[in-house]
Amino acid sequence: MTVQKTLQRILEMIKERDTNLDDFFQNLHPSDFAEIVEDLTGEQKRELFELLSDEEAAMVIQEMEDFDQVVLIQLLTTKRASAILREMATDDAADLLGELPEEQAKELLTLIDEDADEIRDLLKYPEDSAGGIMTTEFISFPENMRVEEAIRRLRELAPEAETVYYVYVVDDETRLIGVLSLRDLIAAADGTPLSNIMRKNLISVPVDMDQEEVAKLVSRYDLLAVPVVDERNSLLGIITVDDILDVLEEEATEDIYRRVGASEMEGVGLVEASVRNLITRRLPWLIITLFGGLLAGGVIGGFTATLEKIVVLAVFIPVIMDMGGNVAAQSSTVFVRGVATGEIESEESWGYFFREIRVGLSMGFICGATIGLVVATAAVFLRLFPAFGFMQDIDLSPLLGIVVGIAMFTTVTLGAIIGTLVPLLFNKAGIDPAFASGPLVTTIKDVTGLLIYFSIASLFIPYL
Amino acid sequence: MTVQKTLQRILEMIKERDTNLDDFFQNLHPSDFAEIVEDLTGEQKRELFELLSDEEAAMVIQEMEDFDQVVLIQLLTTKRASAILREMATDDAADLLGELPEEQAKELLTLIDEDADEIRDLLKYPEDSAGGIMTTEFISFPENMRVEEAIRRLRELAPEAETVYYVYVVDDETRLIGVLSLRDLIAAADGTPLSNIMRKNLISVPVDMDQEEVAKLVSRYDLLAVPVVDERNSLLGIITVDDILDVLEEEATEDIYRRVGASEMEGVGLVEASVRNLITRRLPWLIITLFGGLLAGGVIGGFTATLEKIVVLAVFIPVIMDMGGNVAAQSSTVFVRGVATGEIESEESWGYFFREIRVGLSMGFICGATIGLVVATAAVFLRLFPAFGFMQDIDLSPLLGIVVGIAMFTTVTLGAIIGTLVPLLFNKAGIDPAFASGPLVTTIKDVTGLLIYFSIASLFIPYL
Repeated sequence: MTVQKTLQRILEMIKERDTNLDDFFQNLHPSDFAEIVEDLTGEQKRELFELLSDEEAAMVIQEMEDFDQVVLIQLLTTKRASAILREMATDDAADLLGELPEEQAKELLTLIDEDADEIRDLLKYPEDSAGGIMTTEFISFPENMRVEEAIRRLRELAPEAETVYYVYVVDDETRLIGVLSLRDLIAAADGTPLSNIMRKNLISVPVDMDQEEVAKLVSRYDLLAVPVVDERNSLLGIITVDDILDVLEEEATEDIYRRVGASEMEGVGLVEASVRNLITRRLPWLIITLFGGLLAGGVIGGFTATLEKIVVLAVFIPVIMDMGGNVAAQSSTVFVRGVATGEIESEESWGYFFREIRVGLSMGFICGATIGLVVATAAVFLRLFPAFGFMQDIDLSPLLGIVVGIAMFTTVTLGAIIGTLVPLLFNKAGIDPAFASGPLVTTIKDVTGLLIYFSIASLFIPYL
Repeated sequence: MTVQKTLQRILEMIKERDTNLDDFFQNLHPSDFAEIVEDLTGEQKRELFELLSDEEAAMVIQEMEDFDQVVLIQLLTTKRASAILREMATDDAADLLGELPEEQAKELLTLIDEDADEIRDLLKYPEDSAGGIMTTEFISFPENMRVEEAIRRLRELAPEAETVYYVYVVDDETRLIGVLSLRDLIAAADGTPLSNIMRKNLISVPVDMDQEEVAKLVSRYDLLAVPVVDERNSLLGIITVDDILDVLEEEATEDIYRRVGASEMEGVGLVEASVRNLITRRLPWLIITLFGGLLAGGVIGGFTATLEKIVVLAVFIPVIMDMGGNVAAQSSTVFVRGVATGEIESEESWGYFFREIRVGLSMGFICGATIGLVVATAAVFLRLFPAFGFMQDIDLSPLLGIVVGIAMFTTVTLGAIIGTLVPLLFNKAGIDPAFASGPLVTTIKDVTGLLIYFSIASLFIPYL
C-alpha cells in the first residue's frame, strides 16, 4: 500500500471511528505508521490515537522523532499519556519525558507506577552518555543456573526484554561476571552450568561514557548489545545495536554541522527548527567571519598604494581567496573526518601532517603554473589584439603571470598546511577539531594569502 | 594489557617462535589484534602469521582494513593465503579477493575448493550493492518444520552461520516466504510448524539495491539482519547489522568528502592514500575553482574604472566573499545532510527552501546593519582623528557604510538562496547533492556578490 493510500485509509477510519486497526498493525510497520501520523493535523492525530490501544500507541510513538513525540503527548490527556508511557520501553519513556517541560514530566511520572523508579534513574544520566541511551530491560541470570533452565526462562522472558540475544551472568551482588550470547546458549549441551560456558572477558562500558565512544566500541567489536555498569561493576542496563545506529547518524550529523558553525540544539534538529532558532545558531559564526573578513580586508588596505598604481591586481583577489579556501576545506575535512572515524590516531597526526605538506606543495605547483600561464598568455594576447579586451583600460603585463603564479603556489601550499594544522592543534588541545575549520581557518588563510600576494606584487611593481 | 605492552609481547613471541598464542586469543579481541598487526613491519607480520593457525589468521584478517588486508596477503605464499581465505566468511573473502589484482584473485580462487562458487557469485555484485555486502552463511528451514526440530537444528548449525538470530523460511524452490527471529522461535510452543508462527510480511531487499538504501532500511526498522533476494524472490544471502554499521560510516565519509571534491577511490581511503593518489583526486576540483575564481575576478575587471576612483572599495572584497561563502556553506550543508538522513524528503524541499530564504533575509539584515555601522563609525572616527589611520592615504566616506551594508545584506541573502537552490536542483535532477556545494556554488555566489557590491558602489560614486 502506498503512503498516500494508507493516509487516506487512516483518515477514513478516523471519520468512521473504526476501532479495527488490527489489519493495519498486521501490514504496517510501526515505523511507517509513525511517519504517516507525523503528516496528520493535531485534530486528526488526537482522533486517531483515541482509536489505538495504549500498547499500539506506545509502539507508534517510540518510532517518532523526538520533536513529534512531544507535540503528540501535548495533545493527549495526562491520564492517557501516562498509560501510553507505561507501555513504552523504559529508555524511550525516559527520553520522551526528558524532552517535556519539567512540571509535566514530573506529573506524568507520578501517574506511571510500574517502572517509574527505573525511568527516574534513567533521567539522571546526560542524554548523550551511555546511561542516557541504555535500557533497563535486560536479562540476567545467576552463574550456577544450567543451560536448559536458562533457555526455559528465556522463553518466558522473551516477550518483555529489549534483547534476548545476550544473557548476562551476575553474582549475588548483581555484579556483572560474564556474558552468554543466545547463540552460545543454544549451542551448549544441556546440564552445563552457565559459569562453565559464559565468556568472562566481556566488554562493558561505564555509565558515564560518551555515546560516540560507545558507538565506536560496538562497531569495532561487532556487538549486538553492550552492558552498562557503575563503578562497582553492577549491571545497570544495556545498549542495543539499533540505538547505536541512531547514535552514529546523530554524531555524523553533529560533526558535519559543527564544521559550518551550525550546531544542533537539544531536541530540535536543524531541519525542523524555526527561523528564529536557526538564526540564533548560525549567526555567531557569521559575525566572527565578518570581523575575520574585515581583518583580511585590512591587508588590502595596507597595500592601497600598490593597488592604486596597478588596479588590475584586484582582479586576482577572488581566485587567490577561493583557492586558499577550497584547499584548506579539503585538508581540514579529510583530517577532521579521519579523526572522527578513528582512522587518524593521535600519534599518527604529525606524520599525516607532513604528507599533507607534500600534497600542498605539489598541488600548489600545478595550480601556480596553470594560472601563471593563463595570465601570461592572456596578457600577450591582449597586447597583440587590444580590440578583444572586454575590460577597457586594462593593460596586463605578462610579468603579472609570474606574480599571480607565485602567489597561487604559496596560497595553495599554505591552505593545505593551515587546513590541517589548525584542527590538528585543536585535537591535541582536546577540543573537537570540527570546530576549527570555520572562520578561524578562513581568516588565517585570507590574511596570509593576501599578504603574500600583495607583497610579491609590490616587489614586482617597477617591472609591471 | 596496553597496546604498547601487547605489541612488545608479540614481538618477543615472534623472536622466540612461540606457537602458544592461545592466551592471546583468550584475552585479546581479534579486532584489537588486527590493530596491533597493522603497526608491525612486513617481516614481523610474516613471522607472526607463521605462528597462527589458519582459523586464527582468518579471524584477525577479517578485522583489518581493506588496504592492510591486501598488503598482508601479498606477504604470504599463495597456498597459505588460500588456506586462510577458506576459513573466512564468504562475504569477507569475496571483499578481499575483489581488492587483489585479478590474476592473483583467480589463482587463489582455484585453490579454495570449498565455497569457491559462492565466493565467485559474490564477486559478481558491485561492491556497494546489497549483493556486494551480503553473506551466504544464513540459516533457512522449510515451512513444515516444527519448532523443537528447528531449535535442535539451529543448535547444530550455530557455529557456522553468520547470524542465528533470524531463521528464514523458504518453499521448495528456495523462495523466501517468511522469517522467524530466534526470539519468536524460543518463545513458541513445541510442536508448532514454522509456517504457523513465521512472519509473512517480511522486509527483504533486492540484490542490486544500493548499500546506503539498505542501511536506511535496517536502521529504520531496527533489524539485526535483512534477507537479500533475486527477482524470483529466491533467498541469496543476508546482510547483518554489523556490516550496516560499517556502511553508515563509509557513506557518511563519502558524503563529507564529496562536498570538498575529494572522493574516495575503490579500496584506498583518503587517509592512507599516497601523495600522488591524493593529488589526482583533489586537483580537478581545485582547477575548476581556479577558473571560477578568474571568472569572479572578471567582474572586478569590469569595474576597474570604479575601483580606480575609489581604491578603498577593494578592502571590502574579502568580507563580501567570505560571508557569501560561509552562509552558502551553512545552507548547503544543512540541506545536503537533511537529504542524506532522509529528514528532508523530496516533496518537502521547496517548503524548506522558502524557510531558508526567510533565514537568509534575517541574517542578511543583521550582518548588513552590523558591517554598515562598523564602516560608518570607522569612517567618522578616522575623519575626526586622522592620526589613528593605520592605513595611510585612506579616506573613508561614512556613506561607504551604506554601500557595504546593502551589499552585505544582498550577499548573505543570496548565499542562503544559492547554497540551498543548487543542491536542491541537483537532487531533483537525480544527482547526489553533495557534489553541488563545491566550486559551482562558490563561483555563483562570488560572481553575484561582487557584481552587486560594485554595482551599488558605482551608483554611489558621486557621493563617496
